[in-house]
Amino acid sequence: MKENTFHGLFVDQLRDLYDAEQQITQALPGVIEAVSTDELRTALEHHLQLTHDHLERLDRIFSDLGEPAAGKSCKGMEGLLEEGEEAIKNHSSGVLRDALIIAGAQRIEHYEISGYGTAKAWAEELDLEDVVDLLDETLDEEAEADEKLSAIATGGLLSEGVNATAAAK
Amino acid sequence: MKENTFHGLFVDQLRDLYDAEQQITQALPGVIEAVSTDELRTALEHHLQLTHDHLERLDRIFSDLGEPAAGKSCKGMEGLLEEGEEAIKNHSSGVLRDALIIAGAQRIEHYEISGYGTAKAWAEELDLEDVVDLLDETLDEEAEADEKLSAIATGGLLSEGVNATAAAK
Repeated sequence: MKENTFHGLFVDQLRDLYDAEQQITQALPGVIEAVSTDELRTALEHHLQLTHDHLERLDRIFSDLGEPAAGKSCKGMEGLLEEGEEAIKNHSSGVLRDALIIAGAQRIEHYEISGYGTAKAWAEELDLEDVVDLLDETLDEEAEADEKLSAIATGGLLSEGVNATAAAK
Repeated sequence: MKENTFHGLFVDQLRDLYDAEQQITQALPGVIEAVSTDELRTALEHHLQLTHDHLERLDRIFSDLGEPAAGKSCKGMEGLLEEGEEAIKNHSSGVLRDALIIAGAQRIEHYEISGYGTAKAWAEELDLEDVVDLLDETLDEEAEADEKLSAIATGGLLSEGVNATAAAK
């Protein structure tokens, strides 16, 4: 089996991430519709755009490696999205739901931070320098997106923060 | 509905984490049995012990809040564990499987880092100082466990690292 080499496992990790990103592009528009805080909506819209960039980078990596660009079912992301959808369904009230959406979105960011972190470390071990650079760009953007969500939750100089608004309800 | 307050949602987040930790205590012994690298086995055995401490801290928090210590089905962790079990089943070879186990364990750590990070931020908003301290202790331990796994994967002065050993197979 091809997968029974480190290189094969690496391609498998990329397929997991490819499917995870595809699931996100499908789920995120519905989440954005459920948001009531403008700053959060803008951040998620921006992230949807970035997710397309992340898929394009994975396409380039598959092409460089001579592998078909294909996903394999990512059960981890399925569970995370199911959890998030349940939260949205059960909580109709605006800002409380926004607090839950941030909590779910940050779990998803952390799945990706961990997944891209693993893929980058494995690409380094395999001396795939160009692939390392592409994975690193995405990893940075996922980490930034996570920090942005934390800032929207806890607020700053210009806004009160979703958590404080939710706690005042 | 009680959940339709920020405090109610906070208790709900704690229940999600409680179920996630319980799922980990059930799954981890089987993972430890499948490991072939001693350093990784020791790290996971240590983490199993820590997981019991994390559950005890959550028990104390539920007791402080006057809420029953109970989990609610954590779909996110279910998906992550299912993904990990599949990887173990499909890859019988020692060190390649260890590399996959680390990849899965780090995804699980990141779920918890994100979940405890959210819970801590919400506890701060609710001025629950003792609860913040307890959540912070667990959060630190999850972050340390993630760093330890990275070190075992990439190696250091005293060991080659699981990734390098797997890549040489």
